[in-house]
Amino acid sequence: MRSVNIKSLAKELDLAISTVSKALRDSHEVKEETKKRVWDLAKKRNYQPNAFAAGLRGQKSNTIAVIFPELANSFFSLAIKGIEEVAKENNYHVLIYPTHECNKQEIAFANRLLDGRVDGVMISLSRGTTKYDHLTTLNQRVPMVLFDRTIDELDILKVTTNDYESAFIATEHLINNGCRKILYLEALKFTSAGKRRLQGYLEALKRFNLAYDKNLIIDCDKSERVTRFELKKVLSTSKPEGILSSIESLATQCYDVCEELNMMIPRDIKIVSFSNLETARLWSPALTAIKQPALDIGKEAANILFQLINKKQFDFELKNKVLNSTLIPRGSSSQVY
Amino acid sequence: MRSVNIKSLAKELDLAISTVSKALRDSHEVKEETKKRVWDLAKKRNYQPNAFAAGLRGQKSNTIAVIFPELANSFFSLAIKGIEEVAKENNYHVLIYPTHECNKQEIAFANRLLDGRVDGVMISLSRGTTKYDHLTTLNQRVPMVLFDRTIDELDILKVTTNDYESAFIATEHLINNGCRKILYLEALKFTSAGKRRLQGYLEALKRFNLAYDKNLIIDCDKSERVTRFELKKVLSTSKPEGILSSIESLATQCYDVCEELNMMIPRDIKIVSFSNLETARLWSPALTAIKQPALDIGKEAANILFQLINKKQFDFELKNKVLNSTLIPRGSSSQVY
Repeated sequence: MRSVNIKSLAKELDLAISTVSKALRDSHEVKEETKKRVWDLAKKRNYQPNAFAAGLRGQKSNTIAVIFPELANSFFSLAIKGIEEVAKENNYHVLIYPTHECNKQEIAFANRLLDGRVDGVMISLSRGTTKYDHLTTLNQRVPMVLFDRTIDELDILKVTTNDYESAFIATEHLINNGCRKILYLEALKFTSAGKRRLQGYLEALKRFNLAYDKNLIIDCDKSERVTRFELKKVLSTSKPEGILSSIESLATQCYDVCEELNMMIPRDIKIVSFSNLETARLWSPALTAIKQPALDIGKEAANILFQLINKKQFDFELKNKVLNSTLIPRGSSSQVY
Repeated sequence: MRSVNIKSLAKELDLAISTVSKALRDSHEVKEETKKRVWDLAKKRNYQPNAFAAGLRGQKSNTIAVIFPELANSFFSLAIKGIEEVAKENNYHVLIYPTHECNKQEIAFANRLLDGRVDGVMISLSRGTTKYDHLTTLNQRVPMVLFDRTIDELDILKVTTNDYESAFIATEHLINNGCRKILYLEALKFTSAGKRRLQGYLEALKRFNLAYDKNLIIDCDKSERVTRFELKKVLSTSKPEGILSSIESLATQCYDVCEELNMMIPRDIKIVSFSNLETARLWSPALTAIKQPALDIGKEAANILFQLINKKQFDFELKNKVLNSTLIPRGSSSQVY
């Protein structure tokens, strides 16, 4: 019997090998129509990818690993809780590898898992990750799912949130509450989440006919000291009326700097931030937050991973998942004060 | 040559075997004078405990493990950061095992480490831990240090904070700011930290001639729902003027309940809480906190662990360490409002 592999599928379909590979991974780079053709033939020929076959040859460890960037972060704490709940239902242990935003650490962890000590891996990228060899290599050996901080270009299954829409809605909220000049605190710009959040902000400005001003975007992927300095400078000179902070840790800095500058929130400036902080409601004033469904992201990612681990057949129903975040309006962006 | 062990030391010193064992572990149950006698003879006879000898026989894994109760907790996040810094200096990896306050999970983790996969273990006890067989068993096999949440009775090296003094100072602070009836939110009552915090509170009341009222102590080791119900009831009926919360997660509940009851902080009630929350300064009003030296606790515990791991000889200089916490007065306990 002729062996069925990506090459043979590509030949039969008259497509490039890379296209078939991407289609099997539900890549955004391949048209839906083409994907359907690939999946149909792969099913018909009973195609079984190497990665999963390889995973199934060995002994099960009943352990999965999570590589993630921040320990002291309410989003990741909750996501891991979700992962652990699903792992428990499947009688699996979870190993936890915090990278502290260090790319070298992420690579080291990924390489250590190459030996098959775990049956599956879930990864949320560290801030400094711009090359992905360690991920594609690991993905050849072990079933893998990326969550929250991902890269579109990687043909690995992903669970993310609607970052574009969330940033759009948050910007719209500030505009509706009277802001015309809105400062955007950009972060994680190497991830798809970072890019989509910026796009959502820019698109909302456009929709409401507000001018794009590059001085109103601060790159916060630098050190905390530099970010604070620039934030202070822009607040003093450009006098924005609103701030959209694209990550949680920048929100506390905004409050600090506003206090230093004697700016009253929300009277002088309104603030919205991506944040899952449980204490945000207690802040002075309470912080308007875009809350990601952290627990569900963890659960969803783990569910997909266990489907990858448990099924002998490649599951053509498995797709990238996008969950919805929620804007929670509070005092920091209020028109009434 | 006669072998030197705890039994032979005990015989030569005319002490009980258990006393010698405890003295070697710097137990609080043994008088300083007796400890000195034991240590002097142990040194003279070149005594080497089994646990460490056992650990040194095998191959090194260059990995240590941390078993701890809460992932979404600023104290533990920082402590682990401290542990990881020291581990890195020693070219060690750190495995992280969050128990989510589940005693069964703690036991499962401890038992998994019996196989020698790690060279050392650091443990902070889960809320439900009241039996310690899994700890004493593991301690026979692997060098171990307990941190923060410990039990005095266990003869395992410990790094803790001055919980008694901290609770005393916090209570004194509330008294000095005009509180006569002070509600104490008790938690972790099975740990030495929990016991010492309660003692500190009680001793401060005594010192200032304030009556002890058992209705002013709420046992918060129950569910969040029960705690909230009791907190609401006591605030409404007993009308305390101050609250001392013995753990971080109870502080947010106090703020919520005070809002529900229309009680203004600090006018109607003053609040102090054990907490390492970075956002406490942003709360409305800013939270007066007892901040533990979390990073240093992690570093100190790791340093002791590496001394245990690296030294062929039992190190008689190694003792339990107690680090100092700091009271940070903020708006929630202020006399001015």
